[in-house]
Amino acid sequence: MKNFMDKDFLLDTECAEKLYFDFAKDMPICDYHCHLSPREIYENKKPENISELWLSGDHYKWRAMRSAGIKEKYCTGDADPKKKFIKFAKALQYCIGNPLYHWAHLELQRYFGIKTPLNEKTAEKIYERANRVIDKEDFRPQTLIRLSNVKYLCTTDDPIDDLKYHKLLAEQDLGFKVLPTFRPDKALNIENDGFREYVEELAKVSDTNIECAGDIVSALLKRANYFDEHGCRVSDQAFEYVPFGDISLAEKAFDKVMKGRELTREEIDGYKTFVMQNLGSKYAALGWVMEIHIGAMRNNNSKKFEMLGADTGFDSVGDAEIAKPLSRFLDSLCSSNCLPKTILFNLNDKDNTVLATMLGNFQSHKAESKMQFGPAWWFLDTMDGMTAQLKSLANLGVLGKFVGMETDSRSFTSYARHEYFRRILCRLLGRWIEDGWYAYDEDIVKEIIEGICYNNAVKYFGFE
Amino acid sequence: MKNFMDKDFLLDTECAEKLYFDFAKDMPICDYHCHLSPREIYENKKPENISELWLSGDHYKWRAMRSAGIKEKYCTGDADPKKKFIKFAKALQYCIGNPLYHWAHLELQRYFGIKTPLNEKTAEKIYERANRVIDKEDFRPQTLIRLSNVKYLCTTDDPIDDLKYHKLLAEQDLGFKVLPTFRPDKALNIENDGFREYVEELAKVSDTNIECAGDIVSALLKRANYFDEHGCRVSDQAFEYVPFGDISLAEKAFDKVMKGRELTREEIDGYKTFVMQNLGSKYAALGWVMEIHIGAMRNNNSKKFEMLGADTGFDSVGDAEIAKPLSRFLDSLCSSNCLPKTILFNLNDKDNTVLATMLGNFQSHKAESKMQFGPAWWFLDTMDGMTAQLKSLANLGVLGKFVGMETDSRSFTSYARHEYFRRILCRLLGRWIEDGWYAYDEDIVKEIIEGICYNNAVKYFGFE
Amino acid sequence: MKNFMDKDFLLDTECAEKLYFDFAKDMPICDYHCHLSPREIYENKKPENISELWLSGDHYKWRAMRSAGIKEKYCTGDADPKKKFIKFAKALQYCIGNPLYHWAHLELQRYFGIKTPLNEKTAEKIYERANRVIDKEDFRPQTLIRLSNVKYLCTTDDPIDDLKYHKLLAEQDLGFKVLPTFRPDKALNIENDGFREYVEELAKVSDTNIECAGDIVSALLKRANYFDEHGCRVSDQAFEYVPFGDISLAEKAFDKVMKGRELTREEIDGYKTFVMQNLGSKYAALGWVMEIHIGAMRNNNSKKFEMLGADTGFDSVGDAEIAKPLSRFLDSLCSSNCLPKTILFNLNDKDNTVLATMLGNFQSHKAESKMQFGPAWWFLDTMDGMTAQLKSLANLGVLGKFVGMETDSRSFTSYARHEYFRRILCRLLGRWIEDGWYAYDEDIVKEIIEGICYNNAVKYFGFE
Repeated sequence: MKNFMDKDFLLDTECAEKLYFDFAKDMPICDYHCHLSPREIYENKKPENISELWLSGDHYKWRAMRSAGIKEKYCTGDADPKKKFIKFAKALQYCIGNPLYHWAHLELQRYFGIKTPLNEKTAEKIYERANRVIDKEDFRPQTLIRLSNVKYLCTTDDPIDDLKYHKLLAEQDLGFKVLPTFRPDKALNIENDGFREYVEELAKVSDTNIECAGDIVSALLKRANYFDEHGCRVSDQAFEYVPFGDISLAEKAFDKVMKGRELTREEIDGYKTFVMQNLGSKYAALGWVMEIHIGAMRNNNSKKFEMLGADTGFDSVGDAEIAKPLSRFLDSLCSSNCLPKTILFNLNDKDNTVLATMLGNFQSHKAESKMQFGPAWWFLDTMDGMTAQLKSLANLGVLGKFVGMETDSRSFTSYARHEYFRRILCRLLGRWIEDGWYAYDEDIVKEIIEGICYNNAVKYFGFE
Repeated sequence: MKNFMDKDFLLDTECAEKLYFDFAKDMPICDYHCHLSPREIYENKKPENISELWLSGDHYKWRAMRSAGIKEKYCTGDADPKKKFIKFAKALQYCIGNPLYHWAHLELQRYFGIKTPLNEKTAEKIYERANRVIDKEDFRPQTLIRLSNVKYLCTTDDPIDDLKYHKLLAEQDLGFKVLPTFRPDKALNIENDGFREYVEELAKVSDTNIECAGDIVSALLKRANYFDEHGCRVSDQAFEYVPFGDISLAEKAFDKVMKGRELTREEIDGYKTFVMQNLGSKYAALGWVMEIHIGAMRNNNSKKFEMLGADTGFDSVGDAEIAKPLSRFLDSLCSSNCLPKTILFNLNDKDNTVLATMLGNFQSHKAESKMQFGPAWWFLDTMDGMTAQLKSLANLGVLGKFVGMETDSRSFTSYARHEYFRRILCRLLGRWIEDGWYAYDEDIVKEIIEGICYNNAVKYFGFE
Repeated sequence: MKNFMDKDFLLDTECAEKLYFDFAKDMPICDYHCHLSPREIYENKKPENISELWLSGDHYKWRAMRSAGIKEKYCTGDADPKKKFIKFAKALQYCIGNPLYHWAHLELQRYFGIKTPLNEKTAEKIYERANRVIDKEDFRPQTLIRLSNVKYLCTTDDPIDDLKYHKLLAEQDLGFKVLPTFRPDKALNIENDGFREYVEELAKVSDTNIECAGDIVSALLKRANYFDEHGCRVSDQAFEYVPFGDISLAEKAFDKVMKGRELTREEIDGYKTFVMQNLGSKYAALGWVMEIHIGAMRNNNSKKFEMLGADTGFDSVGDAEIAKPLSRFLDSLCSSNCLPKTILFNLNDKDNTVLATMLGNFQSHKAESKMQFGPAWWFLDTMDGMTAQLKSLANLGVLGKFVGMETDSRSFTSYARHEYFRRILCRLLGRWIEDGWYAYDEDIVKEIIEGICYNNAVKYFGFE
């Protein structure tokens, strides 16, 4: 029996160990998509205790706790922090095989120096030990990010955001860069409550009179320029399904929604296609990367949504057909020469083959793997999910040009997930080399591993 | 080369062996979903020979035989039992990698003490040896169930069933309990031939005047009470796809179908949603568990259906989109506080991620993993299918709270499938522990294994 | 570390080595589906150089090169052959885990005697060495096919083809047979540009006055007879999705399209169903095998399609629902007793379970596994894709009766893919036997391996 999550965790061949320790481990991190708060980074406050750090905003942990039958007051509620932590530890001990279990222990080891396995019996002692570390050491966000060897970090921001904290952070010498990401979901989701209010805000912020769908585009393009001036190099949009429709319906859709009338699916899709085509073209002109996250079904539990709001752990994976609309959408941009560099993320692993082959239709010499298969994300951010994404990309694309991992996280200690990814990557490639499936050439293998860990991303995003 | 299906079958690490032999092997069985006949259990008759036992009702075996090019008369027909057995053995020898191959040999070993591999050459001798065992030993259903260490066994019953044999069995001291399951498929499948006749029968049995969809519900609720009085704690419904529609269409649908008119898909779904919402609410009130089996496409071969009827091996796996309607259906129950404990079963493994994440939207402290991901079932009841379900649940839920395996079988020797499941479970978890992916703590690991094998289920169903 | 792609490549147990070297390796090849040109086989010309051999028509390689950021002139363009080869080698070194990497090295080893790993550094030397082999040795198509131990080879041909080269080849004593395959896609794809022109040609070639959909069928049946007279035993059709519709719409659809009017999806599906039912019936009468390739989405990049035409690397995998229409289509043939022997191929691995279970609905004693699950194909022709197909078939059907591999290729050295398949097959079965999951009986195992490699196919297709 190997020691629990020891130095060689996940590394099951000599070659895997070599790849990880010699090439992967010390590469910096380019976290090109996350949900860290620029304000929290700027304010740079220590958490009160490990309960606040771990349980105040992490819907992965809340879901696991609820699945173990634990009451809401210990999840999102106002129970005593220590009791919360003990309840979490109890849930965690049943989470055999869950990435939460690995993430939690990696974080305990790397940020707290605690190697004891966390369970109901050990919870109280670990709670106290961890809090002493937070007390005594520099446990502020900027320090954690720096210690994690992060060089670039892209937050997720609404086009109407004034980027105040990004500007303030840009003035400091942090040892890493915090860049905004342009996420126009609220301007795209014409079918959602609050669209009209959002349009008003967008009009104000962009100093644009918005009277038609075309005006929305104009306003967004102004904001894209503003973001670009403040270091933005990435856009991100989330789609439950891939919308592709008749763009001539866009104005009608806008008109109807502003009059409070219900839209048809065709009108919604027409509107979204219209806006996305214009945005895609702008992203291409700015040299940005367009990220598309496909397949999250959000807020499935209405009661909990009313009580707790969004992003509290009631989202799951959709299964709509995506191949055809995605092909048409990408082709419509490509045909007019304005398809930007694009990263496609799927949340349903059944779509791996569709995405990994779709990319190949739109590659170009304008970038190495201009079309990227996004790393396994959210529910797929597991040993199995990451391995499947890597294998799918290897089988159907050029793995050596992959831009690699991002955390997609809200937590300052979640950089342990990069270590998790790198160990899984080295395990997989190490096995292939060990078995004689790939010819070992030190220069080439080093270039591939360092590329996937960091170099490919900074080159792809144009950071260096 | 390891010995063929020996003591350590499927157990490939020391830890896996420990988990299986120390914790899993001797746990009782709670078979919370099967298709055993309460009448056959009550009548308790020996089979004539192994051909009757194995080939008189097992569509898995018939399908394998047909796929090997064997004539129907040796499957469902009236060929000589010995010849049937030899034909089956011939087919089986080509079934390398098929669970049938493992099930058959586990049954030969455990119930007949026969270790010789079955193939065309050995078939005749094994046929005779097996029949001698049947002759000489107590090979009656009740004995087989008892020997298999079964404590609870839930059959599958129509709401109009009078539960005569359940009542008779309840009067005996069997050493195990036989409980009915409420399966209202015929009342739900308004689009099927025979619906009107079924409504008449239901009206009679429930002493209800059925003149509208609401009356069907009333009649079913009466029958649910009757089932509850006779020990029922589980309901089960099968859906080819997940219906979710406008419940205001239910009465119209009922009205049309009683007049012999064709229904639209919207009307069918509206009717089913209406009935299911009422049933779900009742199940919740009774504290029952609601099982939903999703994705079987039945009777695909019309010619064979006419010749041989249903459940003869002409069913296969569907691929409809399920995420959205399932989310809406569960949410509609949850919103009115009447979502019962629920087990979702999928027949298409492409849906694993959808189901395993869907559950997390509706967990509650009312039970540990109130929403359960049903074990790999029917076509997925394989080494790969079971491993995939366990991994999916581990990755996305809390595996330690899983209610585990059921046989879904029509055969008294199919309890070998619980052994198959337990070996696969211990193999997987043993590997994780052996590799240092989970901290070995004897108490916790024992609790998890014993829980998944038996304890979680009896607690979840409220049997103990 | 094992030597790179050595003798025991992919064979990771003693048993796997035994199965491969003793049973699989020397079996002949029955390549029952490929895209080799009968004209090129007949003309039997040497390639100029390895660049021509490898890069003049292989969209797999072009896609990999484009994904590595290489310019089009090095793919389909007119760049210098040597430079093209070096560019390809550079892309290949990043293709870790891609089957291209394995195919290329297997071809270098088997056809050129070159064991050096190909990468940017070694490319120039290998280019020269390979060209010397082409120069000095008999590198003509017929010789390569013979050396590959091919006995039967089915090309892919349009019904209007005069089969001139097949006739010429039939007159020669090649040591292998080149047979035509009847592929009526152009007559089925009523929605495509060029349909009317195709109908005219078909009318001419078949000497049929085509004025209705029924006449198309008549013309095709005549051509089927013609193909049958020239050795054809296989038909093939490709469907992006499985069409099943109301055949009474066929004439209306034909009428509309001949008048240049747009068709509805229902009309298209009705027409295709009508033609396919008639063709299926004919295939059954002729004793042919019907191959159906499901799920390729073609020509996704309009710009490249205009520049480069079809089959240039801009196809990808679709995700339409297939279970229901496929069931209905097969049932409609089966009901009228005219379902031919059928091989179903899926391009999306999410459909494995659907296909593998669908087959079981329509098996019959008229052939051993009359309904076959086609080998992993095109994008799935990978270690993972082939293993998944084999496991799916093993779990859900009778693997021992599988007709095995075909190349689906346009290249004379792609027979290395049969070796790849056989090694993967022996690896999988060897592992099962080694682990005691299947009883080792030399006769039976030999029969299974030799069957899947060659014997099952020649029996199934009626070649011997």
